[in-house]
Amino acid sequence: MVQATGLARNEDGIAAALGILKQQFGEQLQTGASIREQHAHTTTWIVNQPPDAVIFARSTQDVSDVVKVCAAHRVPIIPFGAGTSLEGHVNAPAGGISIDMSQMNKVLEVNAGDLDCRVQPGVTRMALNTHLRDQGLFFPIDPGADASIGGMSATRASGTNAVRYGTMKDNVLSLEVVMPNGEVIRTASRARKSSAGYDLTRLMVGSEGTLGIITEVTLRLQGIPEAISAASCSFPTVEAACQTVMAVIQYGLPVARIELLDALVVKAVNGYSKLTLPETPLLLLEFHGSDAGVSEQAETFGTLAEEFGGTGYAATTTVEERTKLWQARHDAYWAMFTLRPGCKAVATDVCVPISKLAEAVGGANDKAAELGLLAPIVGHAGDGNFHASVLVDMDDAEDVSRAETYVSWLNQNAISLGGTCTGEHGIGQGKRPYLVKELGGAVGVMETIKAALDPDGIMNPGKILP
Amino acid sequence: MVQATGLARNEDGIAAALGILKQQFGEQLQTGASIREQHAHTTTWIVNQPPDAVIFARSTQDVSDVVKVCAAHRVPIIPFGAGTSLEGHVNAPAGGISIDMSQMNKVLEVNAGDLDCRVQPGVTRMALNTHLRDQGLFFPIDPGADASIGGMSATRASGTNAVRYGTMKDNVLSLEVVMPNGEVIRTASRARKSSAGYDLTRLMVGSEGTLGIITEVTLRLQGIPEAISAASCSFPTVEAACQTVMAVIQYGLPVARIELLDALVVKAVNGYSKLTLPETPLLLLEFHGSDAGVSEQAETFGTLAEEFGGTGYAATTTVEERTKLWQARHDAYWAMFTLRPGCKAVATDVCVPISKLAEAVGGANDKAAELGLLAPIVGHAGDGNFHASVLVDMDDAEDVSRAETYVSWLNQNAISLGGTCTGEHGIGQGKRPYLVKELGGAVGVMETIKAALDPDGIMNPGKILP
Repeated sequence: MVQATGLARNEDGIAAALGILKQQFGEQLQTGASIREQHAHTTTWIVNQPPDAVIFARSTQDVSDVVKVCAAHRVPIIPFGAGTSLEGHVNAPAGGISIDMSQMNKVLEVNAGDLDCRVQPGVTRMALNTHLRDQGLFFPIDPGADASIGGMSATRASGTNAVRYGTMKDNVLSLEVVMPNGEVIRTASRARKSSAGYDLTRLMVGSEGTLGIITEVTLRLQGIPEAISAASCSFPTVEAACQTVMAVIQYGLPVARIELLDALVVKAVNGYSKLTLPETPLLLLEFHGSDAGVSEQAETFGTLAEEFGGTGYAATTTVEERTKLWQARHDAYWAMFTLRPGCKAVATDVCVPISKLAEAVGGANDKAAELGLLAPIVGHAGDGNFHASVLVDMDDAEDVSRAETYVSWLNQNAISLGGTCTGEHGIGQGKRPYLVKELGGAVGVMETIKAALDPDGIMNPGKILP
Repeated sequence: MVQATGLARNEDGIAAALGILKQQFGEQLQTGASIREQHAHTTTWIVNQPPDAVIFARSTQDVSDVVKVCAAHRVPIIPFGAGTSLEGHVNAPAGGISIDMSQMNKVLEVNAGDLDCRVQPGVTRMALNTHLRDQGLFFPIDPGADASIGGMSATRASGTNAVRYGTMKDNVLSLEVVMPNGEVIRTASRARKSSAGYDLTRLMVGSEGTLGIITEVTLRLQGIPEAISAASCSFPTVEAACQTVMAVIQYGLPVARIELLDALVVKAVNGYSKLTLPETPLLLLEFHGSDAGVSEQAETFGTLAEEFGGTGYAATTTVEERTKLWQARHDAYWAMFTLRPGCKAVATDVCVPISKLAEAVGGANDKAAELGLLAPIVGHAGDGNFHASVLVDMDDAEDVSRAETYVSWLNQNAISLGGTCTGEHGIGQGKRPYLVKELGGAVGVMETIKAALDPDGIMNPGKILP
C-alpha cells in the first residue's frame, strides 16, 4: 500500500497563496473537507491525501493566474479532471491547490472536413462522443471510465480501441498548456503531421501534470464506421486465447477491439450478469469497416480461432446483439467484487510484447494461486496489455502484504519480458520504483527535464519521478 | 539562400579533441577535404559547411567515447546517416566532428511474432525491407530517398505511406541514445504502448541530433499485405483533386498512399518518361488489404473521384502495371529539372489541414506564376503535406531573391492556414525563423530543454533553435 510520501509542506507559502487566491477567486475556491477529499485519490488502495483547497477553473486565464500565485509562493498545484485515475495522480502529498478543470467543458470547434476538434480539458469522452454523433464522427479512445480529455491526455490513456486507433499519444494533435511559470504555450499546429522542432505535444501527453497544465486539446477524430460487428469466442486455455491474438496481429487483421477475460472473470460475470458462458478464457472482439469488410474480418477471425481450439464463436452486427455480447466485458469490473465481497480491487496495468502475453498472463494466474489471492484478469490483448485486479481485504495486514508481493512480482516479470509496468494508467505515486527498474538512466533524463521546466517542483509533486 | 551562421569556432577545443580522437580512432577518423565536404550539406541551396573531421562509428561505445571527448573540449558533434536530409542538418557551422553512422548497419533482431525489430541507425530503409521480405514483413515509412533509419528517426520522416501507417513518431517503439554527456540510455521498453513517464522516444524522434545521438532503433513492422492495388486519376483542377482527397479521408477509406502531382509535374514527367498523361492534376493511389478489400477500396475511390470530375481512372493489382502507373511519381524529381536545365531545386515542405489543401496548393501555383517562377508541386495529399520545388538559377541573384520571396510566402501562408512549415523534412538550419513564427513561446520551452540536456551546446549546434 502506498503511504503518504515524506514531501515537506511549505506552510507559509500555502497560507500566503490561499489568502491571495481566496480574494482573487471568491466562490471558485473551496476548502471544505469533503470537497478536498473528493479531489484526492479515491480509487484503489492508495491513501487519500487531500489538497488545501480546490479551485474550479473557468478559463486558461484562471489557470495561468493560479499558477502564477502558486509559483510566487512555491505552492504545489495538482490538476484534476474527472478523478478516475488509478495511481494517486490527484493526491496532494505536500498539500497545495487542486485545480478542478471540470467546468472547462466546452467543445470549442469541430472540423469535420479535417477529422479534428478542439476541446477544453474538462470535456469527458462520453460528452464529446454525444456532441460528435450527429456529424457521423467519433473519438475512439475508450479507457472504460468516463474520464476527461485533459486527464486522458495527461496519463497517455488508451483502452479497448487502442489496437486499431492507437493511444492518446497518437490522437492528440496539439495542446495548449500553462507552463509552471504561468506562461501559455501551444505545442503544435493543426496539421496532421509535422517535423517542427521538439515534440512538445508528446512530451506533455503522459506527463501527468508534472510539467504543466493542459488547458486545451486538439484531437484527431474518426468517421463512425459504416458497419460494426461484434464477436466472442471461448478458448480451452489462456495460452490458446493469447496465441489466437498473436495470429490476429501477425495476420494484420484490423480488429477494432480484442479483449481477453480470464476464466475467473468469466465465472464472476456469469454469476453477476446471469450469463451461461463456458468458464474458460474468452475473447471479445469488435470489427469496424464496410459491410463486406466486417464480415470478411469476422470470417477470418473464425478461421484463425479454430486453429487454436476456439469454440462457441459467434459474430453479430445488430446493436442489441452486440451489446449483449459485450455485456460480459462491461460488467467485469463490478462482477469481480462478487468473488470476494467487501474487498478493494487493486488495479495493475502491465503491458508486454504480444509474443510474451501467454507467458505473462499464465504466470500471473499461477502466482495468484501460489499466494492464495484472487486476481481476475481482463486484458487489451491486442496490445499485450492486461489488468489483474487483486481483491484485497484492507483490514488484513497479511492479505495486503501478499497483494504487495503479487503486484511487485507482476511488474518485475513484465519488465523482464521486455514490457512495461504501465500500459495506460501511468506512474503516479504507486509505480515510481518500477519506473526506475524499467528505464534506468532514462529516468535521470526525465528528472533533468522536470528540473529545467519546473525548477521549484510545484507541478504535481511526488508523481512519476522517484 | 541560407548563409553560414555566425557561430564561433572553438579552435583550441577542436585541436585538442582532434589530437585525442586521432590517437583513439586511427583510420576510423578522416580529415580529407573531399570526405569532409561529402559529410556536410550537399542537397538544395544551403551552403556546404564541412566538419573538421569525420569519424566512422562502429559501436555505441565508439559514439559514447567520441561524445565524451567532445564534451570535455566543448567541440560540436554532428551525426550523419545517409546525407539525404534537405535542411542543412548535417552542416557544421562551427566546425567539429561528424559522426558517420553508416557502418553501424546491422539488423540486430526481428521479432516476427511481435511485428517489431531492433536495428542499428545506419541501416537504410531499403536494406531493412530487403532483410524483412522473406519473413513477409515490411517497414512502411518511405520518404523517397534511401535514408538511414537513424536519420529518419532524427528528422521525424514520413513520406508516401504516412496517410495509412503514420510517421516515424508512430513507428519507433524505443531508442538507444547517447546523451550529450556520453551516457547511454534506452527510452522505452518493447511493449506496443506504455504510460511509463515522459515520452523520451518521441522527444528524441525529430530532435535532429540536437539532444543526443541515436545508436539503436526499435521499430514497429507491418505484414506485407495480401493484395496491393494501384490507381491513377486525372482531375480538371487542383481544387477538384484536393476535394477528392478530402472526401477520401472523411469517408475513412484506408488508402495506403494518395499522392498529388500538379499539372506542371505531369507535363515534366510526360516529357521525361515519354508518357501521355493529360497535363492536368493527377492523383496516384495505392490500396493495401485483402483481395476483396482492395477491390472494394478501389471501387469506392472511383465513385468519390467521379463526383469531383475525375477522369481516366484505372486501377490494377499486377506488379508490372502498378510500377508503370507509379512511374510518374518515381520520375517526378528528375523530370522537374528538365523544365529548367542547370537549375537547383529548392525543396519546400509545408503541411496544412486537409480542408485547406486546395487553397494552399492553388495559392502556391498562383504565387509562383506571379513571381515568374517554376515551382512544380508533388504532395502527400492525404496528410495535407506538399512539396513545391522551386527551380532556381543560383547564378542569377534576382532569381534567388524571387525564390526566397516565394519560400517565405509559402511557409507563412501554411502557418496562417493552421499548418506547419515542415511536414517531414525538419527545421535544420533553413527553417529556424519559421519555427518561431509557427510556435511562438513553445520554442522557448524547447530552448529550456536543450539547455538542460546539452548545457554546452555541443550537439549539432545551429539546428532547430533560433
